[in-house]
Amino acid sequence: VTQTNVLYDFSAEPGNNELSVKEGETITITNPNIGGGWIEAQNSRGDVGLVPEDYIEAPVFQGGGSIAPTPSGGNAASSDLFVFDAFAPTAASNGNDPWSSWNTDPSGGSNNNWASNPEGTQTGRGAADPWGSHGHPQAYQGPGKRPPRHYVAFGCSDHFIETLTHPQRLNEATVRDSTAMFLHFFSNRFPGFSKSGPELYLLTKQPIKSKDRLPIYMGEVGPVWSYPTTQLDCVVADPKKGSKMYGLKSYIEYQVTPNTTNRPVNHRYKHFDWLYERLLDKYRSAIPIPSLPDKQVTGRFEEEFIKMRMERLQGWMTRMCRHPVISNSEVFQLFLSYKDERDWKTGKRKAEKDETVGMMIFSTIEPEGPDLDPLEVEQKCEQFSRFTKAMDDGVKEILTVGNEHWKRCTGPLPKEYQRIGKAFQNLSSVFTSSGYQGESTLTDAMTAAGKTYEEIALMVAEQPKKDLHFVMETNNEYKGLLGCFPDTIGFHKAAIDKVKEGDQLVATSKITPQDKTMMAKRVSVMSYALQAEMNHFHSNRIYDYNRVMQLYLEEQVKFYETIAAKLRQAHSQFTTM
Amino acid sequence: VTQTNVLYDFSAEPGNNELSVKEGETITITNPNIGGGWIEAQNSRGDVGLVPEDYIEAPVFQGGGSIAPTPSGGNAASSDLFVFDAFAPTAASNGNDPWSSWNTDPSGGSNNNWASNPEGTQTGRGAADPWGSHGHPQAYQGPGKRPPRHYVAFGCSDHFIETLTHPQRLNEATVRDSTAMFLHFFSNRFPGFSKSGPELYLLTKQPIKSKDRLPIYMGEVGPVWSYPTTQLDCVVADPKKGSKMYGLKSYIEYQVTPNTTNRPVNHRYKHFDWLYERLLDKYRSAIPIPSLPDKQVTGRFEEEFIKMRMERLQGWMTRMCRHPVISNSEVFQLFLSYKDERDWKTGKRKAEKDETVGMMIFSTIEPEGPDLDPLEVEQKCEQFSRFTKAMDDGVKEILTVGNEHWKRCTGPLPKEYQRIGKAFQNLSSVFTSSGYQGESTLTDAMTAAGKTYEEIALMVAEQPKKDLHFVMETNNEYKGLLGCFPDTIGFHKAAIDKVKEGDQLVATSKITPQDKTMMAKRVSVMSYALQAEMNHFHSNRIYDYNRVMQLYLEEQVKFYETIAAKLRQAHSQFTTM
Repeated sequence: VTQTNVLYDFSAEPGNNELSVKEGETITITNPNIGGGWIEAQNSRGDVGLVPEDYIEAPVFQGGGSIAPTPSGGNAASSDLFVFDAFAPTAASNGNDPWSSWNTDPSGGSNNNWASNPEGTQTGRGAADPWGSHGHPQAYQGPGKRPPRHYVAFGCSDHFIETLTHPQRLNEATVRDSTAMFLHFFSNRFPGFSKSGPELYLLTKQPIKSKDRLPIYMGEVGPVWSYPTTQLDCVVADPKKGSKMYGLKSYIEYQVTPNTTNRPVNHRYKHFDWLYERLLDKYRSAIPIPSLPDKQVTGRFEEEFIKMRMERLQGWMTRMCRHPVISNSEVFQLFLSYKDERDWKTGKRKAEKDETVGMMIFSTIEPEGPDLDPLEVEQKCEQFSRFTKAMDDGVKEILTVGNEHWKRCTGPLPKEYQRIGKAFQNLSSVFTSSGYQGESTLTDAMTAAGKTYEEIALMVAEQPKKDLHFVMETNNEYKGLLGCFPDTIGFHKAAIDKVKEGDQLVATSKITPQDKTMMAKRVSVMSYALQAEMNHFHSNRIYDYNRVMQLYLEEQVKFYETIAAKLRQAHSQFTTM
Repeated sequence: VTQTNVLYDFSAEPGNNELSVKEGETITITNPNIGGGWIEAQNSRGDVGLVPEDYIEAPVFQGGGSIAPTPSGGNAASSDLFVFDAFAPTAASNGNDPWSSWNTDPSGGSNNNWASNPEGTQTGRGAADPWGSHGHPQAYQGPGKRPPRHYVAFGCSDHFIETLTHPQRLNEATVRDSTAMFLHFFSNRFPGFSKSGPELYLLTKQPIKSKDRLPIYMGEVGPVWSYPTTQLDCVVADPKKGSKMYGLKSYIEYQVTPNTTNRPVNHRYKHFDWLYERLLDKYRSAIPIPSLPDKQVTGRFEEEFIKMRMERLQGWMTRMCRHPVISNSEVFQLFLSYKDERDWKTGKRKAEKDETVGMMIFSTIEPEGPDLDPLEVEQKCEQFSRFTKAMDDGVKEILTVGNEHWKRCTGPLPKEYQRIGKAFQNLSSVFTSSGYQGESTLTDAMTAAGKTYEEIALMVAEQPKKDLHFVMETNNEYKGLLGCFPDTIGFHKAAIDKVKEGDQLVATSKITPQDKTMMAKRVSVMSYALQAEMNHFHSNRIYDYNRVMQLYLEEQVKFYETIAAKLRQAHSQFTTM
């Protein structure tokens, strides 16, 4: 029997065999062989349950790359276990649970979490406000409150651990942070150059497999990606509860059916997360990859939560399907249409070994136009930066206002209509007690009017789910997407800066004049990619906002017309004197 | 030059040549000969202005019954001055200014004062909560905060002063307080009997002038007053500012035009108040006389206030016109259709000398039905008491709810719609800056949608004035009216109690058996009157609520239909994709 101390507060999920523990608490490890990053422990009150091993001191298991053998080990599901579940406790422990208010919603029954999850989908794990000095009140709180994962086991930073636990990311791991950060890492090939900065692409020659080629054409609006003739689409549906570890832990599996094969495949949230990570690794320099809907801990099996997550996963998948580059990628196709477990496992391994990641994605891009002037490249980049920043502000304003409106519509407003309805009915029943003859027409009409206001109360409370909900979801998606742009634009700015240094680098013999020419050529390719991406963004934006505004107004019209009709009916019951 | 100390805080009306003073402050009297209850004084800062003489110590003028000669003295207007203006400072000084929040309305521009004036029209001066133990949060605050008028000058109670300054009220002055109170006054004619209690009517024989007879007929619904064939009505309109004392003090005069003569007469608020006092003296035992709309001090010339007061004076006059007994009374006819100043003055003097006041009004009532059993009388009385109490609760509930709704509709709700509108427009103008071709259809439509929500904001804020206002005014009127019922019902209960004592009074030789029979007969007359009055109340109530509910719902239908139409128009501007 081993005793240990708890490092961080952990809140158990109800009904999931977990044990809540507090920082500083001493617990007894009753089973160290649970696996998947969990141990079984008993607290001083005798309660037994699962606790994430990251949350306890003097861990019995050096988590790292090895996984304790479990009875269920050996099949695909359990081999996935470690890689993704390692992230799960993070959400549980950061004290910033974006869903916390979802279960304790004071407005009762509303399922929005825009307020409690101000940044919408995350903009990359641990990312600080991507807009820097932007003092928006909704600004993401930053990773400060999160206990560092693996800190005790390794005594070094998250970032380093990530490169160790995901060796395939070593080359581009630093790229994943800000451009400011990666410039601190120096290559010994080009002194003063980052091994994984823009130079990796700007100066490296790499062979490109023809099937990976990403052509860019000149369309009416400027550079555009190559769009497929048939748009890929998929349906995320039919969430089912599964379990593992002898039923100790359970999860939800979603059915994903693409329009290409029309054959459903099953995926857990962590599979989506795996896909997200692959797309991020491979495309983020060129294409903003919106984060998945947030993880959440409590109420994971609560019906409404599952429905909400499914809706958001559907939204995310639809957006990915719509993207001509992503939808056509091998990893995305694998996710949507793997034939069997074996196919999935092989494909996964291959995707994880993909080396055309980070800045190298640009090496696959082949624009059809002439090289662009670096000044024009810079201007375009600035323009996109300004626009996405401004749109981010606009979207956040809608979310703030919409959230307040949601709260009013589901909280005080229907209560008020209900009280008006009750007041009319109460007065009507007082009137009925008058003993005066022949006032039943009035009292019946007043009671009906009162009931109408009670019906209106219900309508008001339900309406946001029918219209505002979609405005909020769309803007929330866009907030997530826009949150990725500073990152994507950052890569471009870094490359532009590097090209600007060209003359000086040649003068100091750090690069050859040929290198300088190649850099200018490649930054032009990057600009084509950015423009194609912006044009893709704009056309989607126009489509999405046109659609959501129409839907909103349509539902609003119905709402007000229904109220008017109900009141007209109530009015007709009074006598004209 | 005489110095004096200020007894009570007094707030000057801006633009009315008044001087604000504080309790304990020393001021110099610069002109004691202003008259009308005012002196001119200078404070330590050198400011000069008018101060009510009741508010200062060691008064130079013994206010009482005499009035200092003023240049304008001698005409009807100034001789009225003292009698009524004596009440004016009360409103200014009681710290309970019902209009205080009217001028500082946080919702901006709304002219409801139901919140700040919870009891609506007063239920008689200085009346405590007429429902006794009724703990409604809107309960009238009571007269506690008011500094006693004339206290310093006379060193005796308000009540006594009233009998001195209004000698014609001596007989029934005490009747004006609660039945509990008047039973403390003893007559020496019937030991143990109040001089002004129910005995005054139950046991006194008085000749009745035939023209004062008030017949009660048996209608379909029971006892009813005699209704005129043509309903009296009047229009209160055209408020005009007048002034007196060389323009030092100004006032508003309203034009009152009855449908009988179709000839307008002018009346100041204080004339309405005089009429109210006469009606109260004469009819309150039998007919609840709703109070006038409150006096107010600040902003007396503010346009909206005048409009509001006029509307409420109109409401009060309409209600009085509708009452068959009141509308037919000499004093009411005088008020509506005096021929000239002389006629008015003569009529006033006569009305003030009217002795058929208080309980004696019952001596004029002549029911056509058989005498009622005292038990039945008591049951009817109890029933009316229960009903009016219940309706009072119901009406107050509507006022509370309506007031909250008013605040929401004129405050946070339109602000929210405006912010929604702005947010759509802002996003639209960000979109316009995208540099992407061909999105003007979307941006124009989004801007139009945003503007539509701004229009809706204005509609929402204006709507309460179009519909809720009338619901509030009607209920406010009924609250005032219902507040008089405990008083009216109290007289009946006291009489019933007296009749119940009949046997014992005969046994102890305090009354004769004939007296006892007469008492039972007269309490039956009182019951007929109460029933006639309740039936009048019920028929008016049904009419009023039917009308106001119809108006409310009609306006609400228009409101929601207009919103729906505006949104439909906004919707049509989006492209169907």
